[in-house]
Amino acid sequence: MALSAPPRRLPKTSATAPKDTPAIILVEPQLGENIGMAARAMLNNALGDMRLVAPVHGWPNEHAIKPASGAGIVLDGVQVFDSTSAAIADLSHVYATTARDRDLTKPVLTPRAAAAEMREIFAAGGRPGVLFGREAWGLNNDDVTLADAVISVPMNPTFASINLAQAVLLVGYEWFQAGDDTPDADVRMSKSTRPANKQELIGMFEHLEKELDDCGFLRPPEKRPAMIRTIRNMFQRAQMTEQEVRTFRGIISGLIRRHERPRE
Amino acid sequence: MALSAPPRRLPKTSATAPKDTPAIILVEPQLGENIGMAARAMLNNALGDMRLVAPVHGWPNEHAIKPASGAGIVLDGVQVFDSTSAAIADLSHVYATTARDRDLTKPVLTPRAAAAEMREIFAAGGRPGVLFGREAWGLNNDDVTLADAVISVPMNPTFASINLAQAVLLVGYEWFQAGDDTPDADVRMSKSTRPANKQELIGMFEHLEKELDDCGFLRPPEKRPAMIRTIRNMFQRAQMTEQEVRTFRGIISGLIRRHERPRE
Repeated sequence: MALSAPPRRLPKTSATAPKDTPAIILVEPQLGENIGMAARAMLNNALGDMRLVAPVHGWPNEHAIKPASGAGIVLDGVQVFDSTSAAIADLSHVYATTARDRDLTKPVLTPRAAAAEMREIFAAGGRPGVLFGREAWGLNNDDVTLADAVISVPMNPTFASINLAQAVLLVGYEWFQAGDDTPDADVRMSKSTRPANKQELIGMFEHLEKELDDCGFLRPPEKRPAMIRTIRNMFQRAQMTEQEVRTFRGIISGLIRRHERPRE
Repeated sequence: MALSAPPRRLPKTSATAPKDTPAIILVEPQLGENIGMAARAMLNNALGDMRLVAPVHGWPNEHAIKPASGAGIVLDGVQVFDSTSAAIADLSHVYATTARDRDLTKPVLTPRAAAAEMREIFAAGGRPGVLFGREAWGLNNDDVTLADAVISVPMNPTFASINLAQAVLLVGYEWFQAGDDTPDADVRMSKSTRPANKQELIGMFEHLEKELDDCGFLRPPEKRPAMIRTIRNMFQRAQMTEQEVRTFRGIISGLIRRHERPRE
């Protein structure tokens, strides 16, 4: 079987920082670790424009480097601002990430709907950005008021507190998915084989059925058609490769040879 | 304006651990921190069944507690197994999370497609679970072979390495979204008001237009209809509340009074 490839590490480098992506704006982030993890989550999702508003421990922050896990290229491009309004000055559309229960009047979007909208904004020549609040208490209402809409992540209502970097990850993830054309489901094939064609599959069925006739498994004769349908259906569903068909025919032959050997 | 509610902390407690949810199986996890963060991500998404296969530093692990951020109820329910096959014995469907490029023949699903499938499996009386590999190198091929299908997260191909807890978060997030009926977009309303009705809105338009006629803004007369359409369209788009209509009529009156005051 061709399943013996050694486990490999995932690639950890990126040639260039992604350009022309939504801005990710962290307002008064406290922990360098969270800034680093947010940078990693951004690069995972091909986001390149990180902005910090009044980071509590200044910038640069050495604690951000290790958690960025190789996304230094995002940290290198960070822009720092004194105020949220300065950080969003060049943007055309701003989203504020908050929990659902603020007492204000503002459109509220899921991350998925916001991602689709941001793709449309880009296509129309606009420039969107997303505000994320301080770890302990989120965005204040003045910052939320600057936004065109709110992004709120549907979550377990009894346990909705998520980490800053995880919030960035979910918004970035939806952004990436909205522009990605990976099929929902496909069958990944070993490179050394291909799907079996019907001639190969039916050849295997007939091989198996001949041997099952010979050993008396398919009796009584009136039950034979239904038994064959059951067996064929089961193997049909397995969507075998050409290699697996050959392997299985080898198994049939091997079992027969064992049967032919004298019992000990 | 009713935007002065103080920022609040999100709820951090959960009465009971979610039951009858997909199992999240961490195979040979190394760091207690990651186990704790994975537990938090699980509870965020109403997942309650965490299983560990041969955790490198044993179990319980005190380093898991703080990163769980209140999701101790998930840690309390953890089951530990010696082998992956023991951990999945009671499950009907198993998914392995891996990068896309393994050399094997197996259905590959996005997290979103897998979440939809897991909801169907539950509805049909089955019991699904998801395998996550060790931090440094993921699942080995024997573990992947035990799975019915692979879940692979579409990500930036030049930077696809994600943290264990973040992988759990994304799979859990899609599970929760697949069962959640939050509308993609709605307008959140301050509790002290309601959308303006058309009578209120048109009353505001007529108030504004009368004052603009009086001050000569809507001249020359042949341009007046187009100017009014422009103004009405702009305010129409703002989807004002009844309170905002009253506020804006107050603004109009205030500006007029200023105009009426003698210049200094």
